[in-house]
Amino acid sequence: MKLIADNLRITLPHIQEALKKQDPEPVRELVLKCIEKKPWAIDINTGPLSRFPKQGMTFFIKAVESVTSLPLLIDTSNPEAMRAGVEAANNEIILNGFSLERRKLEQILPLAKASQSKIVGFLLYPNSNVPRDESERLEVALELFEQAVSHGINKEQIIIDPIVPPLAWEDGIVQARTILKVIQRLPELLGFPVETMGGLSNLTTNAIDKGKKTILEQSYISMLASAGLDYALIDILNDRSVRLARVAGLLAREQLFSWEMIRLE
Amino acid sequence: MKLIADNLRITLPHIQEALKKQDPEPVRELVLKCIEKKPWAIDINTGPLSRFPKQGMTFFIKAVESVTSLPLLIDTSNPEAMRAGVEAANNEIILNGFSLERRKLEQILPLAKASQSKIVGFLLYPNSNVPRDESERLEVALELFEQAVSHGINKEQIIIDPIVPPLAWEDGIVQARTILKVIQRLPELLGFPVETMGGLSNLTTNAIDKGKKTILEQSYISMLASAGLDYALIDILNDRSVRLARVAGLLAREQLFSWEMIRLE
Repeated sequence: MKLIADNLRITLPHIQEALKKQDPEPVRELVLKCIEKKPWAIDINTGPLSRFPKQGMTFFIKAVESVTSLPLLIDTSNPEAMRAGVEAANNEIILNGFSLERRKLEQILPLAKASQSKIVGFLLYPNSNVPRDESERLEVALELFEQAVSHGINKEQIIIDPIVPPLAWEDGIVQARTILKVIQRLPELLGFPVETMGGLSNLTTNAIDKGKKTILEQSYISMLASAGLDYALIDILNDRSVRLARVAGLLAREQLFSWEMIRLE
Repeated sequence: MKLIADNLRITLPHIQEALKKQDPEPVRELVLKCIEKKPWAIDINTGPLSRFPKQGMTFFIKAVESVTSLPLLIDTSNPEAMRAGVEAANNEIILNGFSLERRKLEQILPLAKASQSKIVGFLLYPNSNVPRDESERLEVALELFEQAVSHGINKEQIIIDPIVPPLAWEDGIVQARTILKVIQRLPELLGFPVETMGGLSNLTTNAIDKGKKTILEQSYISMLASAGLDYALIDILNDRSVRLARVAGLLAREQLFSWEMIRLE
């Protein structure tokens, strides 16, 4: 299971300020802290960047690439910002992402086709509503593949994000189990090793107690790994959750075990 | 997921000594420590007690029952000791357990029939060898049910223990994943909600590093819970593993979530 740092977000006041001032230093500092923890990639969550999508995304990509050559996830809902990211980036990129929303199908899928990048597909209805159960999610997944392939994308480029629900939702705990089943069933349903991605922090949105948040993450990330998750978006600076994620990734994948594989630092 | 304290074991020198001296105090002390942690039941692992099976088992049962009314697992491979346990116990009991070994089928199954107790069935060949893969394990499970039912046991009395393997075995990490699949598939295969039990401490047999042991347990117990495990034999005094086991049990079962359900003490 590959771990992707979800730490770089425009919602952080000092990152928003950095963009405004076009000062790359706060972005670099945050990314440097993250890469010490050895993530596989960095998610660049810029939000829509509605006012200056090109300038904004280029700022972020350049700032991040000035300190790392890790793969980057371009995480925006704005096709114009996405295009700017694809153009600005030299590192390996993953487009994060598309859904059945028509604007995304028409404007984001061509970017994945042209760049040959992997692209994340969200299990959401065109109106961004969340499917209610396993079978609705599997139907949306089939539709995502069909749409992507009809836009000239190879099916191996697609990474499905089934959207981890907040436990605090009315039926969040039931939906969280459904996500595990969907991850497990997709490869069998599609007939090839479909890759999947999940964002762990969604699970405990609005948690007040950090200890409770962490223990829920530790348990659920183990379940996600066991279900077959390929990519986990995670707060890479939360050592306790990350430690479990790494161990769960080994338990879920390795053919050989040795005590040296388990690192506690 | 019900947690069963696996702490009371004849292999502990001070417990062996207590038996020899017929002094119940060390047993009581250990059990009192365990019940502070609120397990669902206490496993009484007496070993075969080959020299004085009746006296030995009666000693343990009486010592434990003098401090708790929790359910007890009578954990011995010796049918004579098992019979003594069934006769001595007033608390609810579970017989732990039987296998396809002829002596156990002939001498232990009738005890379960007479006492109407639940009984744990081990997924092992008659010679106590471990099945090699998922399909061998499922075959052994079917055979266990068939044998038990032909001895007059109700299928709902049986709890299947697929035998968690040590990771240190040559293919232990692969077998550990197979166990998860077996737990998940049994209810579907047998057509009713088959109950399952697993012993967590087996996973890290001979671990030298306590921290590595705990993190592996934290991850694997989450996977076991997610697979549907009903009963976990666990070191109830290891707060860190137990905390994950409880949270995983909630994530795997509950229909409603609230932050108050998560307890960190």
